[in-house]
Amino acid sequence: MELGTNVESRLPEDDRSWRQRVYEVVFEADSPAGVLFDVLLLIAIFLSVLVVMLESVESIRLRHGALLVRAEWFFTILFTVEYAVRIACARRPLRYVFSFYGIVDLLAILPTYLIALPITSGAGTQRLTTIRALRLLRAFRIFKLAHMLSEAEALRNAIWAARAKVAVFLSFVVISVVIVGSAMHLIEGGRMDDSGEATSSGFDSIPESMYWAVVTMTTVGYGDVSPVTAVGKALAACMMLLGYCMIIVPTGIVSAEFAQAAKKNITVRVCENCMAEGHDKDAQYCKYCGTML
Amino acid sequence: MELGTNVESRLPEDDRSWRQRVYEVVFEADSPAGVLFDVLLLIAIFLSVLVVMLESVESIRLRHGALLVRAEWFFTILFTVEYAVRIACARRPLRYVFSFYGIVDLLAILPTYLIALPITSGAGTQRLTTIRALRLLRAFRIFKLAHMLSEAEALRNAIWAARAKVAVFLSFVVISVVIVGSAMHLIEGGRMDDSGEATSSGFDSIPESMYWAVVTMTTVGYGDVSPVTAVGKALAACMMLLGYCMIIVPTGIVSAEFAQAAKKNITVRVCENCMAEGHDKDAQYCKYCGTML
Amino acid sequence: MELGTNVESRLPEDDRSWRQRVYEVVFEADSPAGVLFDVLLLIAIFLSVLVVMLESVESIRLRHGALLVRAEWFFTILFTVEYAVRIACARRPLRYVFSFYGIVDLLAILPTYLIALPITSGAGTQRLTTIRALRLLRAFRIFKLAHMLSEAEALRNAIWAARAKVAVFLSFVVISVVIVGSAMHLIEGGRMDDSGEATSSGFDSIPESMYWAVVTMTTVGYGDVSPVTAVGKALAACMMLLGYCMIIVPTGIVSAEFAQAAKKNITVRVCENCMAEGHDKDAQYCKYCGTML
Amino acid sequence: MELGTNVESRLPEDDRSWRQRVYEVVFEADSPAGVLFDVLLLIAIFLSVLVVMLESVESIRLRHGALLVRAEWFFTILFTVEYAVRIACARRPLRYVFSFYGIVDLLAILPTYLIALPITSGAGTQRLTTIRALRLLRAFRIFKLAHMLSEAEALRNAIWAARAKVAVFLSFVVISVVIVGSAMHLIEGGRMDDSGEATSSGFDSIPESMYWAVVTMTTVGYGDVSPVTAVGKALAACMMLLGYCMIIVPTGIVSAEFAQAAKKNITVRVCENCMAEGHDKDAQYCKYCGTML
Repeated sequence: MELGTNVESRLPEDDRSWRQRVYEVVFEADSPAGVLFDVLLLIAIFLSVLVVMLESVESIRLRHGALLVRAEWFFTILFTVEYAVRIACARRPLRYVFSFYGIVDLLAILPTYLIALPITSGAGTQRLTTIRALRLLRAFRIFKLAHMLSEAEALRNAIWAARAKVAVFLSFVVISVVIVGSAMHLIEGGRMDDSGEATSSGFDSIPESMYWAVVTMTTVGYGDVSPVTAVGKALAACMMLLGYCMIIVPTGIVSAEFAQAAKKNITVRVCENCMAEGHDKDAQYCKYCGTML
Repeated sequence: MELGTNVESRLPEDDRSWRQRVYEVVFEADSPAGVLFDVLLLIAIFLSVLVVMLESVESIRLRHGALLVRAEWFFTILFTVEYAVRIACARRPLRYVFSFYGIVDLLAILPTYLIALPITSGAGTQRLTTIRALRLLRAFRIFKLAHMLSEAEALRNAIWAARAKVAVFLSFVVISVVIVGSAMHLIEGGRMDDSGEATSSGFDSIPESMYWAVVTMTTVGYGDVSPVTAVGKALAACMMLLGYCMIIVPTGIVSAEFAQAAKKNITVRVCENCMAEGHDKDAQYCKYCGTML
Repeated sequence: MELGTNVESRLPEDDRSWRQRVYEVVFEADSPAGVLFDVLLLIAIFLSVLVVMLESVESIRLRHGALLVRAEWFFTILFTVEYAVRIACARRPLRYVFSFYGIVDLLAILPTYLIALPITSGAGTQRLTTIRALRLLRAFRIFKLAHMLSEAEALRNAIWAARAKVAVFLSFVVISVVIVGSAMHLIEGGRMDDSGEATSSGFDSIPESMYWAVVTMTTVGYGDVSPVTAVGKALAACMMLLGYCMIIVPTGIVSAEFAQAAKKNITVRVCENCMAEGHDKDAQYCKYCGTML
Repeated sequence: MELGTNVESRLPEDDRSWRQRVYEVVFEADSPAGVLFDVLLLIAIFLSVLVVMLESVESIRLRHGALLVRAEWFFTILFTVEYAVRIACARRPLRYVFSFYGIVDLLAILPTYLIALPITSGAGTQRLTTIRALRLLRAFRIFKLAHMLSEAEALRNAIWAARAKVAVFLSFVVISVVIVGSAMHLIEGGRMDDSGEATSSGFDSIPESMYWAVVTMTTVGYGDVSPVTAVGKALAACMMLLGYCMIIVPTGIVSAEFAQAAKKNITVRVCENCMAEGHDKDAQYCKYCGTML
């Protein structure tokens, strides 16, 4: 796991005082102090999210509510200090504040302050919804993990490079879901119970049928909604086989692309004449300038 | 994403007037106007399908019915104009009309006209089924997306090339579903409730058992029908493991085929000096003897 | 799809009469007559299995029972004639009769004769079970498809060659199912309802818990049995993630093996000196005997 | 399947008496006796686990309880003798006792002895829980299979080598489950039934919603908990598609890694004459210059 991110560039030599040393600890992980900081941060993130999770369980909240509130404030202050330190030692504080990491770190501390303000007082269910929304915002702290996963960037680039194929695949999924959903609405809609009265069937509208189509095609299969007519079952079986088999093609394409990428790490020889890399193992002449390797 | 399709060939020079310019905008996407047209078409397709979806939800239809009908007519007229333009500027209009794209574009506008005609008036449930059928036909508009996905053709060719392996895989699926379905019909059929009366078990006929077999093998697992006897559960467990593992082999085969195809993107150029093949796409000098290619 | 199988060797020249010509039509598919035979056989197999399926649906049996019985006898006689012809024109009839294909062809015709005999008369439910068992046997006709799928043999050999890895994978599955099943039996067993009475929970014995474990690990997830305690749900979540991720490793191994196999089809050159095949594309000397290629 | 493990090194020559011969039979599988021992051990493991499974089914325990107890003692004594023999003929008994295999072999025999001791007597449900716990411990005998699966070590090393990518994947799963679970808690929590009373919805706390998120993302889909609001269903559909597609990337990466590893099974021998590398395993002559290797 590669730790650390290089969001900000280094400070000039004459500021290489405490600011630089703090920067190396907080934003990078080349020194033992930097690695220790990242490990402590990781533990703090997991514990604070655990506090948010436990707070949402009513039985636990009734028994340990006070403790949870104190823990919540502890983490909020901890992350506030971390946020302030990051702004203080970064060369371009504004770039950090508006970057993905900066926004995530801000969202990690805002909710607890918002709850303390009288703004968020309200009656009954409205307050309940607000509290649940704030829990969701606090849960976004888990995104602070991204500080430590620079390998995820390589993945994001790979997916962006293959966006044409991704678009084709997603289009295929969208077309299947719309068509089969509409067909099932036609076939299974308007179900009637034994006394001739119309009952709800889960296929009463196209969006509902499309929801069933996604549940079936991704092979999740809740079973809360399922076809009862023979034609409906036959079409459902086709949909299931389609979803079951459809994963094969993108998997094959992605496997081949990763295999190609791995193979391109062929040789690290550099041509003396034109400084080009990427020569095959069995090449005797540079393919860019003709010089002998 | 490659935009545009070349259904029709170019017109001769003397017709290179408004007809040619309109053709380049509508059927191709090399010019900014062509790309803009495709983007607008994409938005129109999604919005019109959204209208069809919303129309099927009874609560929305009651509240915004009039607005939806107007939107429906707007898109129908828009697509009718587009259809007319495509016919007008194509060199071989008949070839377009009877191609996949032409039929899809026609199906996109017919339903709304059909509903307006007195033909489709009918009593109660028959009219309801007709309306649902027309909604399904309108949903086929989503196939107009195919105009923009020429990369899907490469995929279709790849699947056609591997049709022998596809046939083996599908045969295996069919054989498994028939045999296990029949076995479960034998094992679980004729279930009796506590008072000794025969009850419906979901395994009462072979087609029903085959439906359960497909639901289980594709790991969808609705749960509306599941075995209760010990032997039935044991056979079901085997079926689940079979379906779970069966996806491995086709995925492996397809991955290998895509890897092979990717490797063949080494060019077929031959070096004049040493007659060597296997040069990369970006090579300018032969890697075996140094001669310029 | 490669049609035809070579179960029997060719007859000597002096018998090359009607017997040989019939053999070429029935057992092989190199001639137009052979291909036509296989296509007709395929249609007959599917139709006969369809008759078995329809016969099991009570509503259809009540309405068209007589027609189905006549169709059943038609196909049985058809397959009996085919069986007789295969025995007649095969060089080693006994080898055919005891091969996989011979047994399948015999099973395809036996059940209908057995039902006609007075042996299979019995009272009530025993006769019902017998009938269902015979339907299962008739469904085995679908295995006659194997006559036409010689490509499946390559697949069977590949799986046999990798049997060590298959054993490791299956052992892992068995170990997981036993351990997690036993743990869930401990955690969720002995559920009590609100009045303190013990109720059935689906985890009352280790075999039942193992059934749940298989349903969950293969991601089928019927939902007929699911955990209710917090610890049980946590363990179930681990099981689901295990089953979800576990498919990655075998798929990767199989993909790599198929890629290797595809690459070994490198060149078909044969060394004149030692007659060895399998030389790389860029080899100039035979790697087995040193002679120049 | 490679049988046998080399936990202990060989004994010095002067002890090469019955001790060495027993060691070769028990710990290794190069001799016919060693293979026979492993096969018998395999059968014993499966049978003893079967006894544990059957003992947990109440109906079977009532009918055959005495037989099961006798079988249980038979296997316990058998495994105790095996354990003693392993300790006796190993060179470094302590190393074996504290290794994974040693602990598993000890756990395989302890439970039955513990049950015999008066320690484990207790009243009603406590004794029931103890008995179920002991069944779980006895089920751990299935881990004795590990003695025979040395190929699993290669797999373990491969997963440890790729731990960075595994960490990224697991982080992605954790982040998705936390965020979507919290969002669904916000959307679907606080469900009310028709009379306005709050009912349990399965989304009443974040841990419960996270359980639903795991069930959905791994495409298991029990259906015991599922969303009912339109927004909730839309978010659920996104979650399903995410889980359905997410398996593609790790599978592709693992396939590429196994393909790379397979290719490296080209030997690292170097031809003395022309210094060329990349010879196949079965090559006797250098393919570039014809010299013998």
